[in-house]
Amino acid sequence: MRASDLVRPHPTVALSSPAIEAARLLASADLPGLIIVDDGGRPVTVLPGTQVLQMAVPAYCQADPSLARVIDEEAADVILTELDDLTVGALLPPQPYELPVVTPDATVLEMAAMMARTRSPLVAVVDHGRLVGAVTLDRLLDTVLGS
Amino acid sequence: MRASDLVRPHPTVALSSPAIEAARLLASADLPGLIIVDDGGRPVTVLPGTQVLQMAVPAYCQADPSLARVIDEEAADVILTELDDLTVGALLPPQPYELPVVTPDATVLEMAAMMARTRSPLVAVVDHGRLVGAVTLDRLLDTVLGS
Repeated sequence: MRASDLVRPHPTVALSSPAIEAARLLASADLPGLIIVDDGGRPVTVLPGTQVLQMAVPAYCQADPSLARVIDEEAADVILTELDDLTVGALLPPQPYELPVVTPDATVLEMAAMMARTRSPLVAVVDHGRLVGAVTLDRLLDTVLGS
Repeated sequence: MRASDLVRPHPTVALSSPAIEAARLLASADLPGLIIVDDGGRPVTVLPGTQVLQMAVPAYCQADPSLARVIDEEAADVILTELDDLTVGALLPPQPYELPVVTPDATVLEMAAMMARTRSPLVAVVDHGRLVGAVTLDRLLDTVLGS
């Protein structure tokens, strides 16, 4: 069993897309994360859902979540405001995350190791620079456990 | 909008449960993660799916996923062997992860900050030591984005 057997198409988001669009896609399609691509369609990074939140939540709240409590009921608006008018590219950290990418011939264990190492619930599958799709943690576990 | 409005029951796994059972639950119920509880039903930790993989994948493979490739086709068995006969408790790291737990009155921003900080796609909701359930990243995003 190789990545090529398990890979499925996966929505991508361009670096130049509005960040709010990335969040909407994540929410609406029930995805574990997003593949961010450059203008040439090459994957730049894979953003697990929690890292989309990292972009959206003010840094002082992440440092001490209890501080978030002092912001009142309209808290959801704070998140939307953080995402508003900014592109995905502008919100990525300067130090890029390790890119969880495998080639189509990657083994199940290799994909699992990559997910574990990068703490990403999906890996992008790239064939000679071309994005083929993604393998999600769910799909990998189903394969390993035969469920 | 508070945690008490968004919380839903969430399956739990005991520290003394076989690790393989935790992996099966994660795979079969399509969950972003598991809540691990002690004998008294109190949450001990929340394991995102990728951390269940961290338990299952040999450390040398995580350090260098390309090493995983030298192990051949039966790779899936390696994962199952790692999980076999061990309890969840035995596989947890000695240094526990920060527990993504909130009280029922936590705000949306507080839950988002906790998920972002701990990189956990779910937070456990605990009321006076009693586990009420969990709020998932998907549910939180749906709330924030109104989708």
